[in-house]
Amino acid sequence: MSTDHGRVINFGAGPSALPLSVLEEAQTGLVNFAGTGMGIAEISHRSKEFQAFLDGFERDIRTQLDVPPTHRILFTQGGGTGQFSAVVLNLLARYKLLRPQASAEDTVLDYVVTGSWSKKAAEEARRLGGSTVRTVVDARVYSKDGKAFDNIPPHAEFAFSADPALIYYCENETVDGVEFAHDAQSPAAFPFHLLPQNTLVPLIADYSSSFMCRPIPRLADHAVIYAGAQKNIGPAGLTVLIVREDCIVDVDAAAKLGAAPVPLILSYKTLADSGSLYNTPSVLAIYMAGLVVKRMKENGGLPYYEEVNRRKANKLYAAVHEGEQKGVFRRKVQQGSESWMNAVFEVLGEGAEKKFLDGAEKEGMKGLKGHRSVGGVRVSLYNAVTEQEVDKLIAYMARFLAESASVEAAA
Amino acid sequence: MSTDHGRVINFGAGPSALPLSVLEEAQTGLVNFAGTGMGIAEISHRSKEFQAFLDGFERDIRTQLDVPPTHRILFTQGGGTGQFSAVVLNLLARYKLLRPQASAEDTVLDYVVTGSWSKKAAEEARRLGGSTVRTVVDARVYSKDGKAFDNIPPHAEFAFSADPALIYYCENETVDGVEFAHDAQSPAAFPFHLLPQNTLVPLIADYSSSFMCRPIPRLADHAVIYAGAQKNIGPAGLTVLIVREDCIVDVDAAAKLGAAPVPLILSYKTLADSGSLYNTPSVLAIYMAGLVVKRMKENGGLPYYEEVNRRKANKLYAAVHEGEQKGVFRRKVQQGSESWMNAVFEVLGEGAEKKFLDGAEKEGMKGLKGHRSVGGVRVSLYNAVTEQEVDKLIAYMARFLAESASVEAAA
Repeated sequence: MSTDHGRVINFGAGPSALPLSVLEEAQTGLVNFAGTGMGIAEISHRSKEFQAFLDGFERDIRTQLDVPPTHRILFTQGGGTGQFSAVVLNLLARYKLLRPQASAEDTVLDYVVTGSWSKKAAEEARRLGGSTVRTVVDARVYSKDGKAFDNIPPHAEFAFSADPALIYYCENETVDGVEFAHDAQSPAAFPFHLLPQNTLVPLIADYSSSFMCRPIPRLADHAVIYAGAQKNIGPAGLTVLIVREDCIVDVDAAAKLGAAPVPLILSYKTLADSGSLYNTPSVLAIYMAGLVVKRMKENGGLPYYEEVNRRKANKLYAAVHEGEQKGVFRRKVQQGSESWMNAVFEVLGEGAEKKFLDGAEKEGMKGLKGHRSVGGVRVSLYNAVTEQEVDKLIAYMARFLAESASVEAAA
Repeated sequence: MSTDHGRVINFGAGPSALPLSVLEEAQTGLVNFAGTGMGIAEISHRSKEFQAFLDGFERDIRTQLDVPPTHRILFTQGGGTGQFSAVVLNLLARYKLLRPQASAEDTVLDYVVTGSWSKKAAEEARRLGGSTVRTVVDARVYSKDGKAFDNIPPHAEFAFSADPALIYYCENETVDGVEFAHDAQSPAAFPFHLLPQNTLVPLIADYSSSFMCRPIPRLADHAVIYAGAQKNIGPAGLTVLIVREDCIVDVDAAAKLGAAPVPLILSYKTLADSGSLYNTPSVLAIYMAGLVVKRMKENGGLPYYEEVNRRKANKLYAAVHEGEQKGVFRRKVQQGSESWMNAVFEVLGEGAEKKFLDGAEKEGMKGLKGHRSVGGVRVSLYNAVTEQEVDKLIAYMARFLAESASVEAAA
């Protein structure tokens, strides 16, 4: 039932599993970091030891994701929700500097809505005002039942504006289990070829739940990529930003022209000018995430994780598919749009879902309950979830199917 | 030179020392929290185990600080700098709902400027616009040299506005070592008696570096008290808020009347309505701070810490005073306005300060260098710094004085 330290298998959607070896290293760092005689939570963020660690963390992300010199890597707090606001405020400031005469009506924000999180992001843009928020495409229109987020819509439906202040999408929808395909040939890949070509495209991507699980397609074509750390790389409390230089703008100059003022902690310029140290950062979360990405590099980097994550997702979806054919499971997401990181499905029949979840928990597999807004089962397959752990779940699913079949035969 | 785990004595200003017993407990929690089989950084913030911990944390603060039911305790991210903006935006929204017709000119924000942090807070209010930012009093005017923050100004100089949207002060100025006295009779106490009496006073206090080092005078008369955790109670990445109910306002309704929109993560209403769980909080920082305040309660609560902190501060200032009489040290802050938490002084003579700091470091006492903006020596005396550790520093200071005297005698 349990592994070392009485640990269970954690399929939770976030905060989520971290590598045990990292946790053990962090145990030491908590009382004495890098031989300083102080714990990592007790050391000054302006000490040379922490600065060296931060530099290494930045480098390990830059190298593994192949981030070009045109883009800064910044660290902040506040999670994805903080960035819902920050991307809007910073990109509205940028647009104001580019097009000082544009009215709020002419300042268009393009949102691609493929799930709960991109929907919330668009709502926040509307709350903040000062622009016209456009839904480029709403995936619910293309769903099986007309109301679920269960697909990446057809490319023909992505009608981007000619000169938007930003174009926003969420690469992986954690709640709904919908993700853009990374194979550029797939109909569910993000339609980069349809983006306006007339300028440095202000393309924003929320990569919170798929950050560093595999390479990022067309990374250099993005204006901002952001991710809360608490899925693949660390504890909650750290947000990683990859920001193209032209999006780090003088927000105060823009405010003088009429753009909304940007609170200091949300300003990309404040972060960039201070090397992410304008005020005290979340040192402990940075430390743990730094250990995770260092370990990733030692394990072979993203090619290794991409390969393992592909296998994990493929075999899990195969097991769900088998259950679907036997009338026990039902996939919630349309073929081709399924997330590698969050696999969602239903267990059919009265009380069957509870039975499935309780049985899994008895075998030490936790965190499988779907998000409260959509129900069902959700299996999160982040980097720290091993292939062996997925195999254990699949074996359980097979036993569950066999049991269901024998119950049905007896009935 | 070192204690258990090779640890040194940490007099740093923040992030700063934490109790070793808490760090050791956190080592266990990192791999298995509350018997869940998951580490604290890996567990869902919506799990019943985390909710129970969060409730206990809130209770331990409420009980020890005697927070009345009129005030909510909220947890967020972004530190004091985040609150520089948040208090302004939320209180401007409140004022707009109370006085919808007031122009920006008539919307007055009163700032008491006694040091680097309150100065920065006032600057952020000016950046955000939509109001008239007034400096009620600037302590530099009353300084020995006309430019240093070295005092709490005379009460006669605190001329508050009649109907301000907020009144802001910083209880303890970490950089400058200036603090309001807690003895209500002291001329350096905050002049609560001069506040406007016509309404629920919108009094804001930054308690970042003195939070939970002793009781908060007139807590119930405050509209908002906030504190970054990384001084007395925990790691960086957690901000604690105590907010009176009338300051938790419908910021969207205020925006419709013309107030500035408030980004979701800065809205007190969003935090309050969700029990501080609108989005994923900094679980790990909350956990460690929760352990600290629980341990404080077990040790006797604030009366115990107040007494110990008083003794620590008194004996340290006595040692500085002795050095001053011998012409070796010089106090930077005027008598009566000295901080209990951050004692700042100079070591006189060429190269003497470096010698003092190097000598201390050799004996395992670190973090004594003053803030880069003001120089000198700064001794931070937060809760986790023991009286025994202060005694060790004082013994070192006495030896340093003796040595200086013999050098002088020889010269």
